[in-house]
Amino acid sequence: MDRKDLRNGVEELLHAYVEAIDDDRLEEWPDFFTERCLYRVVPRENYDQDLPIALIHCDSRGMLQDRITAHRKANLYAPHLYRHVVSAVRVATADDGIVTARSNYAVFRTSTDPMAFGTTEVYGVGEYRDRIVVVDGALKFQEKIVILDTSRVQSLLVTPL
Amino acid sequence: MDRKDLRNGVEELLHAYVEAIDDDRLEEWPDFFTERCLYRVVPRENYDQDLPIALIHCDSRGMLQDRITAHRKANLYAPHLYRHVVSAVRVATADDGIVTARSNYAVFRTSTDPMAFGTTEVYGVGEYRDRIVVVDGALKFQEKIVILDTSRVQSLLVTPL
Amino acid sequence: MDRKDLRNGVEELLHAYVEAIDDDRLEEWPDFFTERCLYRVVPRENYDQDLPIALIHCDSRGMLQDRITAHRKANLYAPHLYRHVVSAVRVATADDGIVTARSNYAVFRTSTDPMAFGTTEVYGVGEYRDRIVVVDGALKFQEKIVILDTSRVQSLLVTPL
Repeated sequence: MDRKDLRNGVEELLHAYVEAIDDDRLEEWPDFFTERCLYRVVPRENYDQDLPIALIHCDSRGMLQDRITAHRKANLYAPHLYRHVVSAVRVATADDGIVTARSNYAVFRTSTDPMAFGTTEVYGVGEYRDRIVVVDGALKFQEKIVILDTSRVQSLLVTPL
Repeated sequence: MDRKDLRNGVEELLHAYVEAIDDDRLEEWPDFFTERCLYRVVPRENYDQDLPIALIHCDSRGMLQDRITAHRKANLYAPHLYRHVVSAVRVATADDGIVTARSNYAVFRTSTDPMAFGTTEVYGVGEYRDRIVVVDGALKFQEKIVILDTSRVQSLLVTPL
Repeated sequence: MDRKDLRNGVEELLHAYVEAIDDDRLEEWPDFFTERCLYRVVPRENYDQDLPIALIHCDSRGMLQDRITAHRKANLYAPHLYRHVVSAVRVATADDGIVTARSNYAVFRTSTDPMAFGTTEVYGVGEYRDRIVVVDGALKFQEKIVILDTSRVQSLLVTPL
């Protein structure tokens, strides 16, 4: 793939990814990753200093599936909608079949709780740093690091970013 | 058109559409639609349950022109600027010459009222669901459904989304 | 370059530009411009009326370098992160080798001050109006006008937009 096709493919992957989350089709979320994968949500402060603690750390697709099961059956949280904006996608390098991509995101959260129904806030902004591989002709995340500018997370971080 | 050209064309249409609104060139707004068309602004709650009530429902280009005439001559509202961010454009299907596109939007509203001049708020976020056709070589919206996450609309929804 | 390649090239330039700022690689910021250039940050009110006053006015790359030196060594300001979202890029014309591009931006600012660490606000939204030329095979801004919807700027406008 040439550089332009690559950026196009990465954008389509990112757009499908956030659409699945915003649609609440969370059962499909683990399928955007390879079987062995890394998904981490890390405050920028920790990321920049190589500190190990993450808000979420999953290192297999099974762990991602577990999170969704917990989300559906166990977690208690204020009901809400997410809406992602993804921007400034940069395909930085591509060698050995591994694509590195960076992008900025902003997530808006809208309450569906009776008290605040239909009100929207900036839930958080930050950056995606992704390593992407081709599996059976489809692009998948081998690694997705979500670096939070907004480290003061409002209530439980329950829905994936 | 191949898939990539199609997404490119849809993005250019969406960008031209929001630019016209943000520029306050509202007289051009109806021309983004076909003569017979459907433009609806619907809270997500109603959309998801197939409930019929919409905040705005126009089913012809003439009705869109009427809205702009009312906007210019009759409506009273706090003066403001809109600024759209459109993201995650997905061209979902294309058959019989009809293109289906989805995208996320966020609209920021800045007051131009003396009291709050130059202050910006998140006016609303949500989703565009569009059906697009080619008319005389140009892409037009045959249908544009604006699904509002932010259903608690701050003051009058007067400027098109 | 055909129209699609051109938009692709302009998007890559814009994305690299905001990435450099959001990464705090501000020393690279002047290199996105030609030697003789114009960078202005202007409230929309002034822009629309052709009023001359700008918040920032730099007409050479050297002046841009000066700003960064001041930023690093002299300015006092609350520590923060920027996160840009760029959308609706429109390549409007291209003649005599000069490309004109417009885009919408939103900038989110996250405090890294101890008191409000990790909280995010919409810092400002507006529009980029760019004139872009090719210098030694690379796209550069010959002119970048940042038109602020959000003219009530929270605290010092110190980091470039």
